[in-house]
Amino acid sequence: MKSMKNQYLDQLQEKLYAAVISDILDSIGLRNQSLPAHIRPLDPDMVVCGYAKTVQVADVSREPVQAYKKQIEVLDSIQPGEIFVGDVGGSERSAFFGELMSAATKVAGGRGAVIDGLCRDVKKIKEMGFPVFVKGSRPMDSYARNEVIDYNVTINIGDVLIQPGDLIFGDIDGVVVVPKEVEEEVIAKAFEKVNGENMVRDEILKGMKVSEAFEKFGIL
Amino acid sequence: MKSMKNQYLDQLQEKLYAAVISDILDSIGLRNQSLPAHIRPLDPDMVVCGYAKTVQVADVSREPVQAYKKQIEVLDSIQPGEIFVGDVGGSERSAFFGELMSAATKVAGGRGAVIDGLCRDVKKIKEMGFPVFVKGSRPMDSYARNEVIDYNVTINIGDVLIQPGDLIFGDIDGVVVVPKEVEEEVIAKAFEKVNGENMVRDEILKGMKVSEAFEKFGIL
Amino acid sequence: MKSMKNQYLDQLQEKLYAAVISDILDSIGLRNQSLPAHIRPLDPDMVVCGYAKTVQVADVSREPVQAYKKQIEVLDSIQPGEIFVGDVGGSERSAFFGELMSAATKVAGGRGAVIDGLCRDVKKIKEMGFPVFVKGSRPMDSYARNEVIDYNVTINIGDVLIQPGDLIFGDIDGVVVVPKEVEEEVIAKAFEKVNGENMVRDEILKGMKVSEAFEKFGIL
Amino acid sequence: MKSMKNQYLDQLQEKLYAAVISDILDSIGLRNQSLPAHIRPLDPDMVVCGYAKTVQVADVSREPVQAYKKQIEVLDSIQPGEIFVGDVGGSERSAFFGELMSAATKVAGGRGAVIDGLCRDVKKIKEMGFPVFVKGSRPMDSYARNEVIDYNVTINIGDVLIQPGDLIFGDIDGVVVVPKEVEEEVIAKAFEKVNGENMVRDEILKGMKVSEAFEKFGIL
Amino acid sequence: MKSMKNQYLDQLQEKLYAAVISDILDSIGLRNQSLPAHIRPLDPDMVVCGYAKTVQVADVSREPVQAYKKQIEVLDSIQPGEIFVGDVGGSERSAFFGELMSAATKVAGGRGAVIDGLCRDVKKIKEMGFPVFVKGSRPMDSYARNEVIDYNVTINIGDVLIQPGDLIFGDIDGVVVVPKEVEEEVIAKAFEKVNGENMVRDEILKGMKVSEAFEKFGIL
Amino acid sequence: MKSMKNQYLDQLQEKLYAAVISDILDSIGLRNQSLPAHIRPLDPDMVVCGYAKTVQVADVSREPVQAYKKQIEVLDSIQPGEIFVGDVGGSERSAFFGELMSAATKVAGGRGAVIDGLCRDVKKIKEMGFPVFVKGSRPMDSYARNEVIDYNVTINIGDVLIQPGDLIFGDIDGVVVVPKEVEEEVIAKAFEKVNGENMVRDEILKGMKVSEAFEKFGIL
Repeated sequence: MKSMKNQYLDQLQEKLYAAVISDILDSIGLRNQSLPAHIRPLDPDMVVCGYAKTVQVADVSREPVQAYKKQIEVLDSIQPGEIFVGDVGGSERSAFFGELMSAATKVAGGRGAVIDGLCRDVKKIKEMGFPVFVKGSRPMDSYARNEVIDYNVTINIGDVLIQPGDLIFGDIDGVVVVPKEVEEEVIAKAFEKVNGENMVRDEILKGMKVSEAFEKFGIL
Repeated sequence: MKSMKNQYLDQLQEKLYAAVISDILDSIGLRNQSLPAHIRPLDPDMVVCGYAKTVQVADVSREPVQAYKKQIEVLDSIQPGEIFVGDVGGSERSAFFGELMSAATKVAGGRGAVIDGLCRDVKKIKEMGFPVFVKGSRPMDSYARNEVIDYNVTINIGDVLIQPGDLIFGDIDGVVVVPKEVEEEVIAKAFEKVNGENMVRDEILKGMKVSEAFEKFGIL
Repeated sequence: MKSMKNQYLDQLQEKLYAAVISDILDSIGLRNQSLPAHIRPLDPDMVVCGYAKTVQVADVSREPVQAYKKQIEVLDSIQPGEIFVGDVGGSERSAFFGELMSAATKVAGGRGAVIDGLCRDVKKIKEMGFPVFVKGSRPMDSYARNEVIDYNVTINIGDVLIQPGDLIFGDIDGVVVVPKEVEEEVIAKAFEKVNGENMVRDEILKGMKVSEAFEKFGIL
Repeated sequence: MKSMKNQYLDQLQEKLYAAVISDILDSIGLRNQSLPAHIRPLDPDMVVCGYAKTVQVADVSREPVQAYKKQIEVLDSIQPGEIFVGDVGGSERSAFFGELMSAATKVAGGRGAVIDGLCRDVKKIKEMGFPVFVKGSRPMDSYARNEVIDYNVTINIGDVLIQPGDLIFGDIDGVVVVPKEVEEEVIAKAFEKVNGENMVRDEILKGMKVSEAFEKFGIL
Repeated sequence: MKSMKNQYLDQLQEKLYAAVISDILDSIGLRNQSLPAHIRPLDPDMVVCGYAKTVQVADVSREPVQAYKKQIEVLDSIQPGEIFVGDVGGSERSAFFGELMSAATKVAGGRGAVIDGLCRDVKKIKEMGFPVFVKGSRPMDSYARNEVIDYNVTINIGDVLIQPGDLIFGDIDGVVVVPKEVEEEVIAKAFEKVNGENMVRDEILKGMKVSEAFEKFGIL
Repeated sequence: MKSMKNQYLDQLQEKLYAAVISDILDSIGLRNQSLPAHIRPLDPDMVVCGYAKTVQVADVSREPVQAYKKQIEVLDSIQPGEIFVGDVGGSERSAFFGELMSAATKVAGGRGAVIDGLCRDVKKIKEMGFPVFVKGSRPMDSYARNEVIDYNVTINIGDVLIQPGDLIFGDIDGVVVVPKEVEEEVIAKAFEKVNGENMVRDEILKGMKVSEAFEKFGIL
């Protein structure tokens, strides 16, 4: 049986999109909530919506004392409705994310991954139907190249601060971060906006001048 | 009824491609007419061909006195056969282009958009079948981030100067700019070249050495 | 009749993948064999596997004394099983690779191309079913912009040294370089690993904790 | 006779330094107030301290209708104690700042310039003893390359928002922005800190272990 | 006895500066003649003025057949009044220029070097009083890293085309290239402008409003 | 009394320079030992020579559990003859190094610092006469921005691996790393080379053709 949380998130995922959420965040004065353009879905149709499981990753050049220690801890602690959000600082020295981490996140009820770095096993992850948003891919394993140094802490991707539990929404346009303090307000407003929004485009496609449309609806 | 101009442009779009036009421009000494590699079609099959409606966009950090003022002027003035060409200077601070601007350009007879920046509403623009060439996407609106400061003026994308009315041709290989002064000559020569061009490849595929082929046809 | 070499390479191409080869290279201490993330297949399904025909390319701004001289030599000397590997130093000033070079490489029994630069004629190359891995595309020809200055020599892509005859393997995850001295060892070990490898993922998908799986299989 | 404001600023300039102000800003939760490292003084001994006269500059490629219009307005309106702060977005297409603008700012009682772009006339500006902080220099004039589009508005340099009237402090370490709302508090605390601060270093230079020093003073 | 050519160049070097030459080039429609801002004099007081000895350099990764072959040819052919201008394409993989090349250029009557790359032996070059403009320095020799592939040909630094024999002028503000076809005209006009130019600044320093000064002199 | 180790290092520092050491490393096949060009001395006259105390630093966005914990451990453990070598991965988010760390390193007998990141307190560090090589400076403290995660381990700066105890030599040309296994051999050969090296330059300055000089001495 699917959890209540996942049912709610499924609904958001189906009805909303990143741009409308970004507009609502703008309207309440939170104007720096969208991740940089280089973070893309592996597949253009992928949509991700869930709560941030934040993971801080560092570049290293030495063998760890205990291999994958904190990385395993993170994976073992994933909860239903969570998204694995890795702040790799944009590092391209290895594929930090891959098939096994996708499988582990998925089976625990996780809903996707957002990584400011690279992944590998792209083909298998796509076959698994697991939404991963990354900078790109490379075949190299992360061992002795990138290492989890902390999790469930504030991280930072492209100047956007992300707290554990923030709502993450990503689609073909990119990824937005909704701070948990405003989640309820933002989601409510987004649903309102999305319902009324197609009018302007329809009027414009029918031939209304943009200036008239903007005067009438106040939207562009 | 489709305008004469659009019929002509449809024909170019169907028969020519960016690489052959670039070769002709090279041959008449115009060797810097191709936009940088980071400007890509939203969809690999998109082709765009039309006349540049040039738009100069700037980064800003303050609320405008009158929201979207010049941007609306541009959209209201689009003519059939034109392409919205936005010099955003490569800025990634917002999605300068989006669904409503696509709709407005399309309904006015515009044939596409080329933006040295980002767009949003990618899914809806694809569904609309409107060819947009951009650096990438991000969900954030341009309000108080990017602003049109002038239009119908010389702009510059990746060291290529673009004048209002220059012919723009873009496909999967990239985008070329044909200055209006040489449009007729370039198009005539491109049609010639494209007709005779497949011979070399066919001979090579039949097993002719590249050295012989080059000696015989003078093309590589 | 297909050559023995190509049959062997076909088999590798079908059964192996870049990530497992990278892991084996890591395990024998060769930890810098994967090309940078910006070198991508033209099509996500493309796989390339063969021996490096190395080509050193330089930026130039003057007309050559003899057009395309060394480039033609390279193409005329391609052998079955080889891959055209061009070190263009990441230059984006022209499309160094294109349709005719693809055709010439293919007809000579070449199995693909890996270029640290741009290509053009993307549509036709895809139709030809010829795997090309590049940074991107642009319509401009390489004449008087990029020039082959040497071949069958050591080259360098993204800090990976590549010798003539090294085994190259590329897929959606990226491209790895297997030095010829260790080819046999690496391929043998990769086949071993790939056969046993799905167990961990299957156990994880069945619900085994990552910590247990790692303890049991020693893989992540 | 020197204005009161300038006397006050002279005192800050003499006694404080950018690092201590940055520490106080951190301590009250304003952790993003330091401009990027590429903005450097023309001369290592230059120190700048004053109130931001904010100027928004854009890249353009066309001749302006009225040459230097807004730029002249800005210069004519400089007040004693102000610093010319130009958000050129990091553009290197021209030297936005130069000798005449330095002279005009100086004679009006302005105390320096901070430009996220380039300048020229470096030798003459140094001889004038006018502190200018920039990315670098280039000989090209800004005419038809960079243009003032607004001033006395919110601008943005390296993700730091700057309001008209914010206190700017720059020295060899870099430039910090003190929002006017907290100026009084920050300056008071900075004076306090600077008076007690040399103790730790002195103790360390006398041989105290860093761990002891940190335990005793709580500073590193 | 000093050559006539060098006497003429000495005079330019003493009286003119890069910014005024750039302004004259702008005024005759040559608006892309200034090298990028990253090319800097080793010492802020260095000034360079002479005729371009153009050198095309490429990145390589293999040992050359004949060490330093073309590089030695270039050095042996330097003429009085020339400047060694190396298009290294911005490569930082080695120090292409150094003490011995400086000594050889100097002793042959060469007046300096402009390199779109790195140099080494900075201390000794400064002691020699030989003006070198570069991106930076690194200790590594160019052998099997960077190689001269041609000279006395068109080269390209930062989108500025440079022909053999073009006049090069560099000072603390940067480097400008005067095409030989317009040298006489540009130099004549630059001498005119430089003689009358200080008036505006003097008026401004005496307190004239910038708007009045611009109305009166038409300069900013 | 100065330690033996420091006397030996003083001698190297006085007689050798980075370029000659780099040449010797090249000659024994270690061709990737020079740090990237962006790491520069705070003052052009600074020279640094000593043994690497390696420090791995990571970007973080959260408050640490125990402030500066490992950083203090490192400083408390500095030995005479050591250099603080910080792999900050090029991060510019804070000034990782500063006055107190300089003082602590110096008083412990440390001979300098090489940081692939930023520092602050530049003026005071210069006054202290302590050689620091960095990318640049910024006023922000490292607290909750950059954090030491390990030390006395393999690190990596610009693709150069650095082991604890490797010999580091930096001057105006840049920084080279001499692996401890070859220190003795490299230093011996460098002393030899430096003694005979000025001949070529002297011959060239006396007018010998470069081609003759190269034939005679085999050096360029």
